[in-house]
Amino acid sequence: MDERLARVVAALAESGADWAVLSSADSIAYALGYAPPIEAGASPFAAGPVLALVGRNGAVGLLLSEGGQDIPREGEVFRYNGYGRTHGTPAEAAFREAFTSMSRKLGVGGRIATEPVTHPAAIEPLLPPGERSDLAPALRRQRMTKTPDEIPALRRCAEVAAVGQRRMMESLRQGITELRLFAEIRTAMEAAAGARIAVAGDLVSGRERTAAIGGWPDNRRIGRGDAVISDLAPRVDGYWGDSCATVVLGAPTEPQTRLFDAAHTALQCAIAELRPGLSAQAAHQMIRAVVRGAGFDYPHHTGHSIGTAPHEHPRICEDETAVLRAGMVLMIEPGAYDPAIGGARTEWMLHLTETGCVPLAPFPLVVSVPGAS
Amino acid sequence: MDERLARVVAALAESGADWAVLSSADSIAYALGYAPPIEAGASPFAAGPVLALVGRNGAVGLLLSEGGQDIPREGEVFRYNGYGRTHGTPAEAAFREAFTSMSRKLGVGGRIATEPVTHPAAIEPLLPPGERSDLAPALRRQRMTKTPDEIPALRRCAEVAAVGQRRMMESLRQGITELRLFAEIRTAMEAAAGARIAVAGDLVSGRERTAAIGGWPDNRRIGRGDAVISDLAPRVDGYWGDSCATVVLGAPTEPQTRLFDAAHTALQCAIAELRPGLSAQAAHQMIRAVVRGAGFDYPHHTGHSIGTAPHEHPRICEDETAVLRAGMVLMIEPGAYDPAIGGARTEWMLHLTETGCVPLAPFPLVVSVPGAS
Repeated sequence: MDERLARVVAALAESGADWAVLSSADSIAYALGYAPPIEAGASPFAAGPVLALVGRNGAVGLLLSEGGQDIPREGEVFRYNGYGRTHGTPAEAAFREAFTSMSRKLGVGGRIATEPVTHPAAIEPLLPPGERSDLAPALRRQRMTKTPDEIPALRRCAEVAAVGQRRMMESLRQGITELRLFAEIRTAMEAAAGARIAVAGDLVSGRERTAAIGGWPDNRRIGRGDAVISDLAPRVDGYWGDSCATVVLGAPTEPQTRLFDAAHTALQCAIAELRPGLSAQAAHQMIRAVVRGAGFDYPHHTGHSIGTAPHEHPRICEDETAVLRAGMVLMIEPGAYDPAIGGARTEWMLHLTETGCVPLAPFPLVVSVPGAS
Repeated sequence: MDERLARVVAALAESGADWAVLSSADSIAYALGYAPPIEAGASPFAAGPVLALVGRNGAVGLLLSEGGQDIPREGEVFRYNGYGRTHGTPAEAAFREAFTSMSRKLGVGGRIATEPVTHPAAIEPLLPPGERSDLAPALRRQRMTKTPDEIPALRRCAEVAAVGQRRMMESLRQGITELRLFAEIRTAMEAAAGARIAVAGDLVSGRERTAAIGGWPDNRRIGRGDAVISDLAPRVDGYWGDSCATVVLGAPTEPQTRLFDAAHTALQCAIAELRPGLSAQAAHQMIRAVVRGAGFDYPHHTGHSIGTAPHEHPRICEDETAVLRAGMVLMIEPGAYDPAIGGARTEWMLHLTETGCVPLAPFPLVVSVPGAS
C-alpha cells in the first residue's frame, strides 16, 4: 500500500470512522493517484462529482463517468454511463446506481467519514445512516509532511514552474499584453509537462496592479519601467507547483529596487533560517520582519504548504501554531507593496530537511530584464 | 428583475420550495450573472464552494471569500475571510458563519430546494430542517430556451470559438505539436475575450486519435496528411461556446474526403431542417441518417443545448423526448469515424427561430488547409 493511502487510512482511524467518502479533487489525487481534470470545470459528461471510497481495510473504489483512460494507482474503477450516452436511464440515476453498486461491492458499512464542504447531499441517502465524522482535520494533519514519493512529484512541479518563470523573463517585451505574456508562459509549461495543465496564480503589471498584490492577466500592454508580478502555480499530474517572480522591464527606479530587494532578502532569509522546530508563526514573524525592516510590509500570509492542493497546512501566518518538521514542502512568498511604487513578491518551493531547507527548483531572482527585441 | 432570475424563482415555485441554495457554477452564473472562476479549480483562498441563496420573493445573496472584484448582476455579496488571512478564526468556521449570517439577513425559512449533486453537506445543519426539494429538474426545463439577453452572450462565445477555429486553420503546420497548436488557438481566443478563459473540448490529430473521437492535446507532432479534430468550447463571462472543425494538413485522401463530407453534409442538413416542433429524437435520427447514408456512423449524441453549462437540456439523442422550440440554442455535432481512416466532426452553434435556425457565428467548413510555412 502506498504510504499516502496508508495515511488516509490512519486519518480514518483518527476520525473514528470505518469508511471515507472522498469528494475533493485533492484528496482523491492524494489517496488514489488519480487527478480529476479541473481545467474546464466539472466534466459535461458526468452527472456528479468524481468520488472515491476508502475503507479502514485499505479497500478503494473510484466512481467515474465514461471516457478518460487514466488508471488510479490504487483501487477499482466503477464507471457509469453519463451524458455521452445516446440511450439509457437519466445520467443522474446512473450516477446514483453506480455509487450504490460500488458501495455494495466494497462492503461499505459502519461509521462514515466525509469531507463536509465538498460532500454532495445526493449520495447521503445511499450511505449507511448515522452521524458522520469529519475526515478533513485528520487528513490535513496527515498531509502536512510529504511522503518520500511526493518529493519528486513536487520537484517536477517546481521545475515546470521554473520553466514558466524563465520563459516570462525571456518573453517580456515592450508592448506585449499581460494575456499574451501569460499565454507564452503557459505554453512553455505545458510543453514541459507534456499535457494541458491548470495554472493558478497571478499575472499583473504596472504600478497600480502590482501594488494590489495580484489578479489574472488582461489585455493591458506592458511598457518600459513596468513591474510584472508573475505568480505561477501549475498543476502537473495531480500535484501543484507554485512560484513568484517580479521583474521590471528595463531599468528599475531606485524605489523599485528597494521594494524588490526587500522581497528578495526576505526569501533569502527564509532559505537560510527555516528549519524543523521553528513554529510557523515564528517563521512568519521572522520573514515579515525583514520586509518591515526595509520599510515595507505585506498584508498576506508568508506562505503555505503545498501538495495535491495548492494551499495545504501548515500555513505560515500569524495564528498558525504548527511547528515546522522535516519532510514538509513550504511555499515562502514575502512581498513588499507600496501604492506609490508598486509591488514585488518572490516565492520558491522549499523542502524542509533535518537541518534546514533546500529549494526544489530555483529560478533567477533578478530585479529587471532588458526585454526581448 | 432579470428574466433569468425570474425563471429561477419560477423553478423554485415548480419545485414547491421557498428558498433555493445554488451550489453549481452554472446555476449561479445563470441566476446572478456572477461566474465563479473554474480554470484553476476551487479557489485556494476559499473554505468552501461559492453558494447563492434565492428566495421566492426574488431576494438573492452570494457567498464569496475575499478577493475578486466582480459584482453580480443580482443580489448582495456576503464575504468571509478565507485562507488569505493572517489572523482570525479557522476559515471553515468563517465560511459557515458567513453562510448563517447571509441566511438570517435574507430571512431564509420554509422549504429549501437544492441542487443535490453539488449541494455541500457542510451547510445542511445551517438550513431550516425538513425534507429538501430537488431544484434541478425544474431549473433544467426553465433553461431550455434562452432569454433575449442570453443570445448576445452566446453569440459572443460563438464568435470567440470561431476566432479559435480560424486560428487553428492558420497555425496548423508540419511538425507543430498538438499542445502548441492548442496554445496558439487558446491565445487567440483569450485575446478576443480579453481575459483568461476555461476551454473544454478536444484537440487530437492523426488517424488513431481522431478515430477515437477526442481527448486533450499532447506533445504529438502533426504531420502532412494528418487530420486534426479541433473541438473548442470556450467559457466567456460565464457562458459557454462550442464548436468543432476537422481539417487535414495538406491534401486529403479520398477516404478522408468521404468522411469529412459525411460530417459536413449532416451539419448542413441540420441547418436546413431544424425547426420548432421537431422532437429532439427525430432531429437526432434525421442527422445521423445522413452520416449513415454515407456509410459511416457516430457513437455519441448528435448535440445538446448550451448556456452557462457546456451541456444543457435538451440533448439531441435517441432517448430525448423534448420538442425543439424557438429560443433554444443548440450545438449540432455530427461525426464520422472509421478506424481505418480516422475521424471527422463538425459543430456549429444554432439559434432556433420561429421558422428554422441560424448559426450564431459560422467558421469555414473546409476539408484541408495547406499549412502555414
